[in-house]
Amino acid sequence: MRAEIIAVGSELLLGQITNTNATFISARLAEIGIDVYYHTVVGDNPDRLKKAIGIAQKRADLIVFSGGLGPTKDDLTKETIAVILETYLENNVDALNSIEDYFLRANRIMTENNKKQALILADSFVLKNHHGMAPGMALEKNGLQYILLPGPPHELEPMFEKEAIPYLLGALGKQEVIVSRVLKFYGVGEAELEDRVQGILLRQSNPTVAPLSSQDAVILRLTAKANSTDEAVKMIAPVEKEIRNLVDEFIFGTDDDTLSSKAAELLKKSQLTIAAAESLTAGLFLSELASEPGISSSLKGGVVVYNEEVKVEQLGIPQSLLDEYGVISSECAEALAVKVKQKFGSDIGIGLTGAAGPSPHDGKPVGTVWIGIALQNGEVSTFKLDLSGNRNTNRRRASQYALYYLIKELK
Amino acid sequence: MRAEIIAVGSELLLGQITNTNATFISARLAEIGIDVYYHTVVGDNPDRLKKAIGIAQKRADLIVFSGGLGPTKDDLTKETIAVILETYLENNVDALNSIEDYFLRANRIMTENNKKQALILADSFVLKNHHGMAPGMALEKNGLQYILLPGPPHELEPMFEKEAIPYLLGALGKQEVIVSRVLKFYGVGEAELEDRVQGILLRQSNPTVAPLSSQDAVILRLTAKANSTDEAVKMIAPVEKEIRNLVDEFIFGTDDDTLSSKAAELLKKSQLTIAAAESLTAGLFLSELASEPGISSSLKGGVVVYNEEVKVEQLGIPQSLLDEYGVISSECAEALAVKVKQKFGSDIGIGLTGAAGPSPHDGKPVGTVWIGIALQNGEVSTFKLDLSGNRNTNRRRASQYALYYLIKELK
Repeated sequence: MRAEIIAVGSELLLGQITNTNATFISARLAEIGIDVYYHTVVGDNPDRLKKAIGIAQKRADLIVFSGGLGPTKDDLTKETIAVILETYLENNVDALNSIEDYFLRANRIMTENNKKQALILADSFVLKNHHGMAPGMALEKNGLQYILLPGPPHELEPMFEKEAIPYLLGALGKQEVIVSRVLKFYGVGEAELEDRVQGILLRQSNPTVAPLSSQDAVILRLTAKANSTDEAVKMIAPVEKEIRNLVDEFIFGTDDDTLSSKAAELLKKSQLTIAAAESLTAGLFLSELASEPGISSSLKGGVVVYNEEVKVEQLGIPQSLLDEYGVISSECAEALAVKVKQKFGSDIGIGLTGAAGPSPHDGKPVGTVWIGIALQNGEVSTFKLDLSGNRNTNRRRASQYALYYLIKELK
Repeated sequence: MRAEIIAVGSELLLGQITNTNATFISARLAEIGIDVYYHTVVGDNPDRLKKAIGIAQKRADLIVFSGGLGPTKDDLTKETIAVILETYLENNVDALNSIEDYFLRANRIMTENNKKQALILADSFVLKNHHGMAPGMALEKNGLQYILLPGPPHELEPMFEKEAIPYLLGALGKQEVIVSRVLKFYGVGEAELEDRVQGILLRQSNPTVAPLSSQDAVILRLTAKANSTDEAVKMIAPVEKEIRNLVDEFIFGTDDDTLSSKAAELLKKSQLTIAAAESLTAGLFLSELASEPGISSSLKGGVVVYNEEVKVEQLGIPQSLLDEYGVISSECAEALAVKVKQKFGSDIGIGLTGAAGPSPHDGKPVGTVWIGIALQNGEVSTFKLDLSGNRNTNRRRASQYALYYLIKELK
């Protein structure tokens, strides 16, 4: 099955927004073995949309549309498709109810325009929208599959995964379900990880194992196709185990976990409190932890000790220690962790010091970072990083590594 | 002139990367009055690329290509265009020199493959690449304009602005230069801003005035076309003045300014030092300031006082004040600002307290935030926000508003 994705919207052609929907849809179609041959973007113009559809009909078996399902006069994707397919739009009771429900929940008044959104292509299958008003649609005509999706990514993405993918699997005659499991790594580069699990990557077929890289983690996505969710889960388990046998030390979480959510979860579970003394990160570590709801029972607070005199005055780091070992040292990171733990009466103390850049600091090259972790039993560990980014990627990575080492200690 | 942008690259069709190049090129073309009618994405496949070009030739006067100019066998944009246009590739001495220079500068060894990148379409105009090896090309054939650009955005963007735009203006017979000036706003919504400057927006032509919205600011981009840079700058000045007369109170900076860079600049200029006590933002405000290089002479540090007892113990906020007014109050924000200024011996103190969400806090609804600013002369101001985002957009906006109010005080 060859697919084409047509995004409809003049704002895309004006460069006001980026076509991230095509990226998302392409990645999900690749997972179920559908090849995407073209992306097309066309404006809110019925003639040009008609021509684009005409071209796609000749070169694709599946056309996925995004955008143009809204309530305004500019939204004309389904109207244009109705003309081309020589069919008509009809009111869909479920869709109308769902739109009315949406307005009730949002406590807003429904306008006549919104009723337009309850119109669907005759004989189409409704793709439910749990995050907005416009229902999606799927239909087959003359051997071609058409999928219509709303433009906003937070509506399109769950609709595509939960409604369109099962529809497509059915259309492909596959009695299949797709189950994905994401393993999240830190402290290891994508190339090194691929190298270490290469044997598994090479013989992958079902489940597939795809390495992905994001800003804050390296990811392996395991995707199994099976006749039932249970079966798919059972197919993924041994592959996950095999991967864990090779590289478990770098896995900090799964699926929707982030470094901060995992650290917050483990802190809550262990009923331990934490405080931090931050130099180069200047509050970034604590702020990341505080992004997690319900952290207040674990997070006491901390100090930002940006320059040397503040470290001495506010935390009581001995000036002699700084003179002997320097501000960027294992000894300073340890002292920051121990002192902030004492000062805030927390179970765990974290210390962060380093040279973020752009210039070397206290004789240490840009990217040198020391992290200290003082535990409730009195033990203190320190970790050294040699980062190679710019000022702000170094600061961010230092904060993320501190979360990663914290997770390892809490496990 | 009708334009089409064709991005070449299988990784786009696999959903591994997003076509941000089309967004960038579209926005720049809109500025010089060229309408983009279609974006197309096609894989590294010569047959399908040929077909895509054939379609574009029928519906566009200008085709802009991105990607496929690299050294590998998969890179075949210029080779395919050569076949279609019945022309040939020739070695370009300047391009080869520039590639050799690049390898010298990068201290890397040049391979035979890289010489392929010095081949350009016969009779084409070379678009210089100052950030990579592949030169771009521009040529006219049978009344159509073809522009070829490398895929990596950090190479494509400067090449398009500095090389392709002047070429296009020349091709359009315009002896013009384009100059843009960006005004950055905070504390005002895009809709309200547009409403207040509507008179200017409506009669805009040269300079054009385009409202843009980004995560952290509302932006007006003024773009003038003129015969010289001087003339363009002179055309922008009165329009900027007129805008400032209407909404100057919301303008925090221009061009590349961010809230944190502007705050850091004003702190340095005034030689004032700063400290902050952060509750809901938990270090985010200080971390934003610390993202600016050279901030260490201004930024003393601060405390993260996440829960009530820490506010009392670490900063000496009177328990009676918290009991009387609550943690989320003008009084608490003021006390945080004053106390942290005293404790750190800084000229300015900032206090941040509020209910980030997801649940109300201390009887205050989600999104209620108080910001306190204590100045060197003993004056203290407090500001209330009623934010409507989720936990982390509220935390981020609170931090950004604190920077914005700080900028206003420093001005």
